[in-house]
Amino acid sequence: MPAAIVLVDHGSRRSRANDSLEQVAEWVREAAPGRIVLAAHMELAPPSVADAVDACAARGATEVVVVPYFLAPGRHSTEDIPRLAREAAERHPGLAVRVTAPLGPDAKLAGLVLERADP
Amino acid sequence: MPAAIVLVDHGSRRSRANDSLEQVAEWVREAAPGRIVLAAHMELAPPSVADAVDACAARGATEVVVVPYFLAPGRHSTEDIPRLAREAAERHPGLAVRVTAPLGPDAKLAGLVLERADP
Repeated sequence: MPAAIVLVDHGSRRSRANDSLEQVAEWVREAAPGRIVLAAHMELAPPSVADAVDACAARGATEVVVVPYFLAPGRHSTEDIPRLAREAAERHPGLAVRVTAPLGPDAKLAGLVLERADP
Repeated sequence: MPAAIVLVDHGSRRSRANDSLEQVAEWVREAAPGRIVLAAHMELAPPSVADAVDACAARGATEVVVVPYFLAPGRHSTEDIPRLAREAAERHPGLAVRVTAPLGPDAKLAGLVLERADP
């Protein structure tokens, strides 16, 4: 079983931003059929990182990779989300939880910028 | 001459986030040689959107496309940045300035999520 993915954004009081993350999670599921892929929010809206890690464990995951849905490194992706992931992992002995670099910056984003500019 | 691109993020007091946007702008320049591509910040750090639009005009651009470097729609990408772009455009009669959708959500981001998960 490949590592379950928990995609984490900041979280918003506006449902539109939260729905947007869920949409991306759905695209990841379509790209990786059968893989556990869950969306979670750092704050302001459920599900939390702990909720998502619990759900991965309940579905039988033995490894969870937390991907910060952010475009630049910062306190959220380098401190807050790793701390939340660590706290969530402590509740599940035997579950390996790691946190990756945020989505950006990445050279592949240049293509997306050009697509927006010249649709 | 293709439209000049102004890539706009929130802006941060931390230079690392601002440098990150400049890095993406540089990748866009590499992908589109000769095109005017500038980074700007909505707030907290220079250059401003107005600074960048002024610079595009000074370099002879007749059209500027402002791309919000955000991963989800929200007030910044749908209200604040369009307002800043409009105000900047008013100072340059004859310069066409438009604002695109933000980078995310986009199905292409699913590939980037999977790359982070399985490096």
